[in-house]
Amino acid sequence: MQKPSCQNLYLDDDNHTLVLLDQTLLPGKTHYLQLKDADSVRQAIVSMQVRGAPAIGLCAAMGYYLEANLLADHLLPDFVSRLKITKQSLQSARPTAVNLSWALGRMQEVVDQNLHLSPRQIVALLHQTALRLQQEDIDACRQIGIHGLSLLKKGDGILTHCNAGALATSCYGTATAPLYLGHENGFQFRIYVDETRPLLQGSRLTAYELSKAGMDVTLLCDNMAADVMQKGLIQAVLVGCDRVATNGDTANKIGTLGVAVLCQHFGIPFYVCAPLSTLDIATPSGNDIHIEERDTQEITHGYYQQSIAPQGIKAYNPAFDVTPHSLITAFITQKGIITTPFHENFLKILDTPSTIE
Amino acid sequence: MQKPSCQNLYLDDDNHTLVLLDQTLLPGKTHYLQLKDADSVRQAIVSMQVRGAPAIGLCAAMGYYLEANLLADHLLPDFVSRLKITKQSLQSARPTAVNLSWALGRMQEVVDQNLHLSPRQIVALLHQTALRLQQEDIDACRQIGIHGLSLLKKGDGILTHCNAGALATSCYGTATAPLYLGHENGFQFRIYVDETRPLLQGSRLTAYELSKAGMDVTLLCDNMAADVMQKGLIQAVLVGCDRVATNGDTANKIGTLGVAVLCQHFGIPFYVCAPLSTLDIATPSGNDIHIEERDTQEITHGYYQQSIAPQGIKAYNPAFDVTPHSLITAFITQKGIITTPFHENFLKILDTPSTIE
Repeated sequence: MQKPSCQNLYLDDDNHTLVLLDQTLLPGKTHYLQLKDADSVRQAIVSMQVRGAPAIGLCAAMGYYLEANLLADHLLPDFVSRLKITKQSLQSARPTAVNLSWALGRMQEVVDQNLHLSPRQIVALLHQTALRLQQEDIDACRQIGIHGLSLLKKGDGILTHCNAGALATSCYGTATAPLYLGHENGFQFRIYVDETRPLLQGSRLTAYELSKAGMDVTLLCDNMAADVMQKGLIQAVLVGCDRVATNGDTANKIGTLGVAVLCQHFGIPFYVCAPLSTLDIATPSGNDIHIEERDTQEITHGYYQQSIAPQGIKAYNPAFDVTPHSLITAFITQKGIITTPFHENFLKILDTPSTIE
Repeated sequence: MQKPSCQNLYLDDDNHTLVLLDQTLLPGKTHYLQLKDADSVRQAIVSMQVRGAPAIGLCAAMGYYLEANLLADHLLPDFVSRLKITKQSLQSARPTAVNLSWALGRMQEVVDQNLHLSPRQIVALLHQTALRLQQEDIDACRQIGIHGLSLLKKGDGILTHCNAGALATSCYGTATAPLYLGHENGFQFRIYVDETRPLLQGSRLTAYELSKAGMDVTLLCDNMAADVMQKGLIQAVLVGCDRVATNGDTANKIGTLGVAVLCQHFGIPFYVCAPLSTLDIATPSGNDIHIEERDTQEITHGYYQQSIAPQGIKAYNPAFDVTPHSLITAFITQKGIITTPFHENFLKILDTPSTIE
């Protein structure tokens, strides 16, 4: 299988730099950031130069490693305590996606379990772990693609919301993985992309990456999804997720809930593509998920920061919503497809070795 | 009752001019067009400098009158045949809203029934008819406001989509009429306004006119409606309409269907505010309504005509969608509230004299 490009996010080891495609400038400009410490990585996450739950988790891990590398000449106690602050700082960059704290947890574990080593030796292990996390992400996405494709038919119309694409991960994407694999295997999907206001991840990123890959893509405003479903053009919806509670309630980009309600009404399967790192067993239900609210200028000033609303108008800008488990047909994970009862089946799958390697 | 301003659309008799607030420049600029013939009125409708079903009907009637006035020195047969062409031209400006052909039909009737008079005498009758249509519109909106308010409670959260406001009519609006009346009577509604992509009639027009009137307005992206409903913030949805089929299926601004589906899911009443001129007894069901598709640049280039999507991407841009009657709780008309069975009750109400004058 020919791999889609993974050049949007990688460690440049020669220069101790995280190279990161600036997603806020797409599709107009292709510009790579060169980030050298945790603060600059944090800033890239806050400003959404990188976004997408798996991608921000990976970047945070890489930022943690870069910072550790800068601290490698410190004495161990100082090294450890400074990295604790680094972890807190990176973790607070965005509150909703669980991958951020999951990936940082994996890095912190390496430190905690190797306090008998020197800082420089620990840095080497952190480097390996960051690279391993990226490889795991690539593998998980590919496996999500294989499992997801088994649910789809040739010629299907598929709608997706926001960007859970190659740009949101390090490769393939989650919700887009079945589309990339289907494209390579002649499935000739008709793909409908919600533009995803306010930050237009659908038009700027998903439409960009899927059309660049040669797929048949039609861009829609968010409020047109009901119309294409009513017209029978959509056979399945695939979305990503930022945090899945143990009962299956799922936080994802604002607007996902509305699409899920439409799917139930029109009898269309609604699939959540979820690497298992997005499953948060510490969160019992959607009520327990903290939802980030962002600056209302994103709404009132549109994408180019020009006013599109009356001055001083109040606005509401939640970055995510919570889709209750009752609206979700199945989760597509790297270890297979999970149907109801979700809680029981999540616990089972977490104990199962991967079925596809 | 203090009337909201009706200065956005009126005949200036001294100058034989239709004065029209250019809605494409709101809320940034307040600019009035001075239109002197049918062609310039047609152009204002096509370019959506005026929009909203009742308003475009009125403008078309006024444009028809202005053109008749310019033709008043022609011989009667020439006068009549030129006005037929004028009617066809105005009617084709936008296909979905029935008010356009309804209002032009009213004007054409005046000509057809007075062929014993001189063109100048007919022009005088057309002038009276255009003014009468405007007064009927103002009265209908006010009565829709009174009937609609009877369905609402103090402190209700009310969501509206697009602009069926004072800017879409000559006064009060349809969907906004209960809000204006409620505001004057201390109902303290919390009003949520969908921004309504692609042309942002919600943020640019509805948020503008309601906040200017002093109401508590919160602006949302279209994809946030499900979230505020899930949070219990919405007690009713009020929308306007462009054409209502006899079975109750309703064409309105794209996105209306999605909001109606959400209402059914969350158990929120979904009300369509409809002057009876919007009821099209020649159209049996929504399948028979012609839906206008507009230039996809409205989606790919955002409001300020700057690219927000990859170059050359395919897009789909229906201006309206059709909400099936099964999702509509009731129609609010100037003659009262119409519940199911819609077809039967439409026919009854069309035969009933107005209950509120």
